[in-house]
Amino acid sequence: MMERLYKMAAKNHVWRSYIGLGYYNTYTPHTIQRNIFENPGWTTQYTPYQAELAQGRLESLLNYQTMICDMTGLKIANASLLDEATAAAEAMGLCYRHNKRRKFYIDNKCHPQSIGVVETRASALGIEIERIDWKEMDLSKRDVSGVLLQYPNTSGAVEDYTNLVENAHHNGTLVVCATDLLALTILRPPGEFDIDIAVGSSQRFGIPLGYGGPHAGFFAVKEQFMRLMPGRMVGVTRDASGGDAYRLALQTREQHIRRDKATSNICTAQALLANMAAMYAVYHGPKGLRHIGERVHNATLILAEGVKKAGHQLQTDLFFDTIRFIPQNGQAEIVQRADKKEINLCYQSDGQVGISLDETVEREDLADLLHVVGCTQTMEEIAEELGTQPVNSINNTAFHRTSEYLTHKVFNRYHSETNIVRYMKQLENKDLSLVHSMIPLGSCTMKLNSTTEMMPCSWKEFANIHPFVPLEHAQGYKEMFEELERDLCEITGYDKISLQPNSGAQGEYAGLRAIMAYLHSKGETQRSVCLIPVSAHGTNPASAQMAGMKIQPINVDKNGAVDMKHLTAMAEKYSDTLACLMVTYPSTNGVFDNGIREICDLIHDKGGQVYLDGANMNAQVGICRPGDYGSDVSHLNLHKTFCIPHGGGGPGMGPIGVKQHLAPYLPTHPVIPPYGTTGPEAKSFGVVSAAPFGSSAILPISWGYIKMMGADGLRHASEVAILNANYMSKRLKGHYKTLYKNENGFVAHEFIIDCREFKKTANIEVMDIAKRLQDYGFHAPTTSWPVTGTLMAEPTESENKEELDRFCDAMIAIRKEIHDIETGKSDSRMNPLKMSPHSQAVIMSSNWDRPYSREVAAYPVAYVKPETKFWPSVSRIDDIYGDQNLVCTCPPMESYESPFVDPLKDRKTAAASSG
Amino acid sequence: MMERLYKMAAKNHVWRSYIGLGYYNTYTPHTIQRNIFENPGWTTQYTPYQAELAQGRLESLLNYQTMICDMTGLKIANASLLDEATAAAEAMGLCYRHNKRRKFYIDNKCHPQSIGVVETRASALGIEIERIDWKEMDLSKRDVSGVLLQYPNTSGAVEDYTNLVENAHHNGTLVVCATDLLALTILRPPGEFDIDIAVGSSQRFGIPLGYGGPHAGFFAVKEQFMRLMPGRMVGVTRDASGGDAYRLALQTREQHIRRDKATSNICTAQALLANMAAMYAVYHGPKGLRHIGERVHNATLILAEGVKKAGHQLQTDLFFDTIRFIPQNGQAEIVQRADKKEINLCYQSDGQVGISLDETVEREDLADLLHVVGCTQTMEEIAEELGTQPVNSINNTAFHRTSEYLTHKVFNRYHSETNIVRYMKQLENKDLSLVHSMIPLGSCTMKLNSTTEMMPCSWKEFANIHPFVPLEHAQGYKEMFEELERDLCEITGYDKISLQPNSGAQGEYAGLRAIMAYLHSKGETQRSVCLIPVSAHGTNPASAQMAGMKIQPINVDKNGAVDMKHLTAMAEKYSDTLACLMVTYPSTNGVFDNGIREICDLIHDKGGQVYLDGANMNAQVGICRPGDYGSDVSHLNLHKTFCIPHGGGGPGMGPIGVKQHLAPYLPTHPVIPPYGTTGPEAKSFGVVSAAPFGSSAILPISWGYIKMMGADGLRHASEVAILNANYMSKRLKGHYKTLYKNENGFVAHEFIIDCREFKKTANIEVMDIAKRLQDYGFHAPTTSWPVTGTLMAEPTESENKEELDRFCDAMIAIRKEIHDIETGKSDSRMNPLKMSPHSQAVIMSSNWDRPYSREVAAYPVAYVKPETKFWPSVSRIDDIYGDQNLVCTCPPMESYESPFVDPLKDRKTAAASSG
Repeated sequence: MMERLYKMAAKNHVWRSYIGLGYYNTYTPHTIQRNIFENPGWTTQYTPYQAELAQGRLESLLNYQTMICDMTGLKIANASLLDEATAAAEAMGLCYRHNKRRKFYIDNKCHPQSIGVVETRASALGIEIERIDWKEMDLSKRDVSGVLLQYPNTSGAVEDYTNLVENAHHNGTLVVCATDLLALTILRPPGEFDIDIAVGSSQRFGIPLGYGGPHAGFFAVKEQFMRLMPGRMVGVTRDASGGDAYRLALQTREQHIRRDKATSNICTAQALLANMAAMYAVYHGPKGLRHIGERVHNATLILAEGVKKAGHQLQTDLFFDTIRFIPQNGQAEIVQRADKKEINLCYQSDGQVGISLDETVEREDLADLLHVVGCTQTMEEIAEELGTQPVNSINNTAFHRTSEYLTHKVFNRYHSETNIVRYMKQLENKDLSLVHSMIPLGSCTMKLNSTTEMMPCSWKEFANIHPFVPLEHAQGYKEMFEELERDLCEITGYDKISLQPNSGAQGEYAGLRAIMAYLHSKGETQRSVCLIPVSAHGTNPASAQMAGMKIQPINVDKNGAVDMKHLTAMAEKYSDTLACLMVTYPSTNGVFDNGIREICDLIHDKGGQVYLDGANMNAQVGICRPGDYGSDVSHLNLHKTFCIPHGGGGPGMGPIGVKQHLAPYLPTHPVIPPYGTTGPEAKSFGVVSAAPFGSSAILPISWGYIKMMGADGLRHASEVAILNANYMSKRLKGHYKTLYKNENGFVAHEFIIDCREFKKTANIEVMDIAKRLQDYGFHAPTTSWPVTGTLMAEPTESENKEELDRFCDAMIAIRKEIHDIETGKSDSRMNPLKMSPHSQAVIMSSNWDRPYSREVAAYPVAYVKPETKFWPSVSRIDDIYGDQNLVCTCPPMESYESPFVDPLKDRKTAAASSG
Repeated sequence: MMERLYKMAAKNHVWRSYIGLGYYNTYTPHTIQRNIFENPGWTTQYTPYQAELAQGRLESLLNYQTMICDMTGLKIANASLLDEATAAAEAMGLCYRHNKRRKFYIDNKCHPQSIGVVETRASALGIEIERIDWKEMDLSKRDVSGVLLQYPNTSGAVEDYTNLVENAHHNGTLVVCATDLLALTILRPPGEFDIDIAVGSSQRFGIPLGYGGPHAGFFAVKEQFMRLMPGRMVGVTRDASGGDAYRLALQTREQHIRRDKATSNICTAQALLANMAAMYAVYHGPKGLRHIGERVHNATLILAEGVKKAGHQLQTDLFFDTIRFIPQNGQAEIVQRADKKEINLCYQSDGQVGISLDETVEREDLADLLHVVGCTQTMEEIAEELGTQPVNSINNTAFHRTSEYLTHKVFNRYHSETNIVRYMKQLENKDLSLVHSMIPLGSCTMKLNSTTEMMPCSWKEFANIHPFVPLEHAQGYKEMFEELERDLCEITGYDKISLQPNSGAQGEYAGLRAIMAYLHSKGETQRSVCLIPVSAHGTNPASAQMAGMKIQPINVDKNGAVDMKHLTAMAEKYSDTLACLMVTYPSTNGVFDNGIREICDLIHDKGGQVYLDGANMNAQVGICRPGDYGSDVSHLNLHKTFCIPHGGGGPGMGPIGVKQHLAPYLPTHPVIPPYGTTGPEAKSFGVVSAAPFGSSAILPISWGYIKMMGADGLRHASEVAILNANYMSKRLKGHYKTLYKNENGFVAHEFIIDCREFKKTANIEVMDIAKRLQDYGFHAPTTSWPVTGTLMAEPTESENKEELDRFCDAMIAIRKEIHDIETGKSDSRMNPLKMSPHSQAVIMSSNWDRPYSREVAAYPVAYVKPETKFWPSVSRIDDIYGDQNLVCTCPPMESYESPFVDPLKDRKTAAASSG
């Protein structure tokens, strides 16, 4: 496999790319690459919902948020979004949520992919976008929701938006500023111009180009918009012992709770990449970053001078790292010289040429660039002429940054490799990951991410490719994409794949948009109702909402299957307006619905399409194919079934597969249209990600997984995954009830452990069991989803019998602890469950006054031993926030209930993630 | 730097090499590569002398020993030696120690490099080597110490040595068998033929070829020879709480204690590579290994049949993986076809061709090989003819292995990547390494090993090159060697470097042999006295002994400097027979001797040479050069000053630098003579390592370090290293006495903390302080060397002030704890020092009955916190062995005292390592 991949990689041309447009070369500090990106201790954790065993990356994500706030000059930031373009689209959504106006301006000097994503997003929400020069924006009618600007803009120019911002605020319009973290090391931050929202990419803080991703988008707001902010945010709280602790703060997610505000379906973030970028800032510190910024700026000043001397018309007076110019003799001679030096520049269709510099530009690179632009003077000569204070320097303007940043100790303490390695390892060792024990997260498929699959992601031939290089420079990627697409089609029974969506939720959205575009092209514009079983992933209704659909929930029966009667009734009721059904198979209740084919037929009969949520593909690969039993489109969570590691909360990848009739409507891209989206038959609905092929750099993982497993291996994996779940279900029998089984008593690849009775018998909540599992060295299964008061466990095929037994032993031991409460042997309040998890600080204290022993608390079964004990680093997170800690960003089904029906009862659940 | 290295790497031809001769292609399981070899948690530990915080790798090394015992069929194995050839030489030494006979037979079908190293070693010890066919060995005169055989032999043949072994034992001769671990998966192990000693390389158990190393040599013996065995051995013992614990077992090192038995100077081993090989066996397990063995053997059977069919004369009837044949039309056409396919074979000067297969040989490779040998039948055709039980198969002979191996649970439990990752992480997290805190090991320079330097070691262009490929295939290596040599010469003031020695001790040996060869070539054969200050590294006298020298210790004065009066007297006394002085500068007492130039002049005046131990180069680089102030030869510990990580006890590298007059005598190699050792002027004394350039694959580390630091950086590093030591010495003033300082009150880059008084005042031994430091999260400095009852601390330039202060705070806090004993505030026996280190099991127990609190025990200062606490995984190792635990393999100075002088007093010290 590696041999093949070497050859494939060699087909990518690793030229020097100074294309810019939101993507820049960067030096990933090798110690960060090796000790975070290439370290399963950092890549295999789950999203930090169980805060007590996730304090390491929560701290790092808090560093990230602090960094974003400091750099942008805003008060509040989240813990990353998928990319800059979707962050811009989310910002538009926030503006709309804030003032409900349906008009949104975009300055035409924003990055084209951001414009594309925002426009696509707006089109389904009924928001009217106007793309215009910012100087010509008319805000006086007070009908404009928000304005999107880029600072510095896509041409590199630094412009003074002060008056616009003032005017906007005067007229009730919000201002969104896409910006650049490195520029902000020396440039006055947008927060100081009073802008409301800053978005951007943290890619150039040490994250490889990766032919488009994965990278972390950032999102920062003024304090007043905190509760409207999308995505996850880490906050500081206190634990049961009164100490400081970090957790995912969920109060900002209220926008999801009420249907009318559901303009975001964000679930997966880019935790791993955010952590890397944060660590880059920790490593360099404010001085180091400023030095990098100044170095880049100075190089650009020299280059600009060279461009002028060479006789070209420089289009950017004030800039940070990017210049545009009109070549005096046209582009051709520039192109020729650049190609000869194996340099990619940004060639505009209007004849302009753009060059964006970055921290990797060394003396020789600058000399080569001067040669390319035809400047005959040397770099040294120009530098001497310019002197130490070049007149064009930002430092000589009002844009010069005067405010401090990254003053927190964490950014001023770890500037040597020795120190930062210790810091990274310290954080790593606070977090439970797959390197410790199984993480039986139902629906999230926490399975093996093999090193062999991961290694190619670090190869320079995959890592150091700008997403907008000519397609012929990325033939290695092309070959991989095509093979991956072919394989995924064969696995799913679909005809065409779009690799663009960066998460499951984004895949859902893209799939639904494709359905809508298809229906519209057939003239069936009245079709907009989306049927969704109440057991669906929370992202389903959010995505449907964003795709402009109306949601009709569908009941499930007592076995957890779709209530066919209800479905039939609703399909009938909305037969004229039915757009689609979103269904998960095997169901989110952990059972293979017998009626799946019948369900699909029913929907098709009524003129609708079937969207099958691919979250549970791990139970199907090699066994059955959605495309065969009637589905029209699915997303595939490559970070679940196809082995991309969860990264502690991203990256993910959510490509969608579609049947042939939907293929023409798949996502395109304004800069590099993906293969098959340009022909005359192409009728793409738009663009959903900043990069044409999503997070390309992690696709070798899924490609490699499929190639190494082969058909037999893949089928075998699904079989073992199902076998493992059934084994556990049977072993727990007599101790716990498996909530849903099929008529033969079997479950699919996951199953629901019913813990609801313990509330009555012992005052034990499911959360107590989840927290107590930490003392046994385990991460809890999915909690209270899809059914409140239950645990949903998915062992995956990667865990062997010994590990399944260890987990079952823990569950059985916990059941005995509950029994002790039931029988009065244990205190109903001061017992190991209620007081869990037990941190080292608590156990080690001389003051132990609990009615059970230290040993019972910390070493409750024989296999938990001092030598290998994993310690939750804090006690239970404060109760007030406790309930919310396991809630995903995705809202529970109910919050989307259609106005046409009564709210369903008994389903006040926290939701798990499809992202 | 990386760019340059990419280009350099590209000059190495990564052909398929089936050369054999002790080096074979292998698949390093990527998870082992990434999680051990590329993980600072596994590479940056020190040698596990402090057993309580090294239980992880001690367990792994015990796995290694178990694996070696099982595979070879012998009872006792050590934890690795430098390579197969030195293991063979050590075996010869053992035979001599056992029966004192001075004749040793080597079968002429042993690997040439093993023969070379054994012959070289013998020549200085006065042992006569006879290289002969094993069938012609005459043992009847009872004058033969031992016999070295290879099984299978270097031509691939499996021969029946049973009668020879019987005859040998009948005549008091020992039998040493060099063997092959993979062959032994299906081949009857040598232990079952009653051989006494097995040696070999564990390279093919997952360690890349690396152009010769580093790899772990193995050494196994019958139980009766345990106490004669060289090198380190891990043993099981009990801790203070009565639990099982691992430790370095030192009883086998008695051979070092008495001068007359000192035929080994082994110190550095290959711990990291031994751990990788052991983990390869853990991962594959006995079934997996047998499968690999059978697959390789079967491929070889097919190839052999193809060779015969092609009309060549096969020379090997019974073989495992290697065949030799006489091509019917000479070598040329084979060479031509092989070159065209980019395949290296083993071309013998007698016209024979050898081919050695390995686990990487796939279908296509075998097909290519059949083509190369000119066989017109396909692999499939031949396979069909041979059937499932080929007549030549080992399985049909008496050599078929029938005994089980690797039956221990550890080899039958971790066969999936998920499981082995958890096992590796579990072991890693038991061990304190540089990722936790500073390891202020005096004389061992535990400094930063940057990722950037480490990365190239994994590149296939460096990793996958057989050491015996034609020199023109390794031009990338050549370029690096030459640059490294040039840089090291500039740093040291020497004229020529030999990269061959694999450790500091081996460098010492090579340097001394070069001196002796030089003196002999001048006809001064009477010169054999070596003057060594008593403060010297323990390896110094051992190496001198092995080089055939007589040792005269030299006193040191009260400041720790060489006692000039004594030196002058001894130089005078032995002026006719003086061969050299071995001196360390700055001295092992942590002081720059003012008289170093005077000392060198004195030795030269008396006709001797100066050997300067390079262990303390970290204080000199960029500041002064041994070649300038009078030294003739030094070894450079690349794993100290030049950033190769210690790997938990190896790999090391000990190249030697010499002045021009010694250059002709540097090591050569019987297969690939290093550059400059072949001309008419070359008068090499012999060969010291199996590979021509030692552990080539780790040389990019030192090359990269020098290139990235540059002249200014290197000097600055030395300055900071000295500054840091002086800062610590001053901060500890008033609490501890710095034993030796210069006349201005300064120390060099390390200093000795005198702890001897506490024995009297508080009954506290230095070992109590060392163990108590573990509770503070630190590895102790060098203990009781060079002065008993003291600690020698070397902070290196890599540690910042904060970390120096943390360590000093710990030392000061411990001083206060001692004070509490002195004043009677603490119990003299039940106090935190005597009871240290405190394992989690002890602290967490409900039964805490000590007069101090749990908090005092485990969190004695504010910076030791539950969230980040590093736990020693066991309590103090049993007292009976306690004293020996910190003793290196290298003997204390005294044991080498020359018969001419009275033993020195007050220096009953444990020795530290120069290796």
